[in-house]
Amino acid sequence: MKVAIIGSGNVAFHLNRALSFKAAVSLINPHTLEGLSEKKFDIIVISVSDDAIEEVFKKIPKTNTLIVHTSGSVNMDILNGNSIDYGVFYPLQTFSRKQDLNYKEIPLFLEASNKEALGILKEFASLFSPKIRIANSQVRKSLHIASVFACNFSNALAGIATEILSKSGIDFKDLLPLMHQMVDKLDNLTPQEAQTGPAVREDMSIIKSHLEYLKQNHPEFYEIYKLISYQIQRNLCNK
Amino acid sequence: MKVAIIGSGNVAFHLNRALSFKAAVSLINPHTLEGLSEKKFDIIVISVSDDAIEEVFKKIPKTNTLIVHTSGSVNMDILNGNSIDYGVFYPLQTFSRKQDLNYKEIPLFLEASNKEALGILKEFASLFSPKIRIANSQVRKSLHIASVFACNFSNALAGIATEILSKSGIDFKDLLPLMHQMVDKLDNLTPQEAQTGPAVREDMSIIKSHLEYLKQNHPEFYEIYKLISYQIQRNLCNK
Repeated sequence: MKVAIIGSGNVAFHLNRALSFKAAVSLINPHTLEGLSEKKFDIIVISVSDDAIEEVFKKIPKTNTLIVHTSGSVNMDILNGNSIDYGVFYPLQTFSRKQDLNYKEIPLFLEASNKEALGILKEFASLFSPKIRIANSQVRKSLHIASVFACNFSNALAGIATEILSKSGIDFKDLLPLMHQMVDKLDNLTPQEAQTGPAVREDMSIIKSHLEYLKQNHPEFYEIYKLISYQIQRNLCNK
Repeated sequence: MKVAIIGSGNVAFHLNRALSFKAAVSLINPHTLEGLSEKKFDIIVISVSDDAIEEVFKKIPKTNTLIVHTSGSVNMDILNGNSIDYGVFYPLQTFSRKQDLNYKEIPLFLEASNKEALGILKEFASLFSPKIRIANSQVRKSLHIASVFACNFSNALAGIATEILSKSGIDFKDLLPLMHQMVDKLDNLTPQEAQTGPAVREDMSIIKSHLEYLKQNHPEFYEIYKLISYQIQRNLCNK
């Protein structure tokens, strides 16, 4: 396949790397779009920040080539008007330039404007990973919100833990075996089955003593502790 | 060393397994304490649920042997009165019988009633892991609260993500590569450095659209989303 990737960020970097030896890739500067008109591509991938997608799209000349973006939260229809074939290629992963990734493990969520576009998009996706899913813009939105909870917010809780420990002089790294184990357990159990801690044990005296500690030492975390404990216990009732 | 482990739960199971070929272990039934008085031990480890520690302790006859419990949240002084040597052996890990563990990776938090007791406790701890820390009951409490945030609450967020996805027919397992990557990043970065997502990008239009989605579809998660996003942005100001 002949692939144009418009972008200079982490996602563009990893897409380009994952495709080496599998496709003919042209990496295109999102500001100049230099090199985009000279060749004939099978797919044009706009891999820029959410805010910039529309602007980049409007600069692309009318074409017959499939055009997709890679965003979790931007509607597919933003790409309507330039080609009849358009869609979304959303890899569910967080990309950092420094961190190596096993691309074959990454679930890919696809959406396309028509059957033919979906065919090309699937062919493209299969160069990365066998985990190909179809998801419209509404499903992709719920996916993005779910991953904000499971990934961005879990990292934020690790940040809260770090702040709590820093007062006691304990290195945050000491929590890492516990966090690795927490995620490893989810390979085999549902989160509901894997839940441990005072809230699921309904150990009210421990919860009370933790809340008192937070009120005195970290009042900014008090409500979060209360809300998530309540959430865990609400879930118990649904079991 | 001659070790008595009083308990029949997951922690007792793993302690016993970790010590095989390294110490002479007697596993003691917490209800009968059968076999405890017949032998001379170097250390007695009470490894039962938080609520049951005091009750078990009171049944142990007066002794010169070091007595410790393994709880994160129970004060050391609960063991005062039976032996002058007492303490706490708190392994910072979540134990399931089914899951294998690399014991050498587990940080161990020790507290002892006097220097001699601490010496024996350190010797015992070094049979498990080189990651030996000293922590009084107050520090251990902050450690427990931090691990509730980093581990129990992160698992609860994975549960929330599962609920959100179930409405869209997406398997929760598709979020696991993302969660593994989230924890792997913390091996090299602080949570503050590793933070990604709409809140840290201050992408208010995405946050607003997520909150609207939650209000309509999962109002029970609305406040948690708002509070943690606020927390992430408060942290930005501290950078």
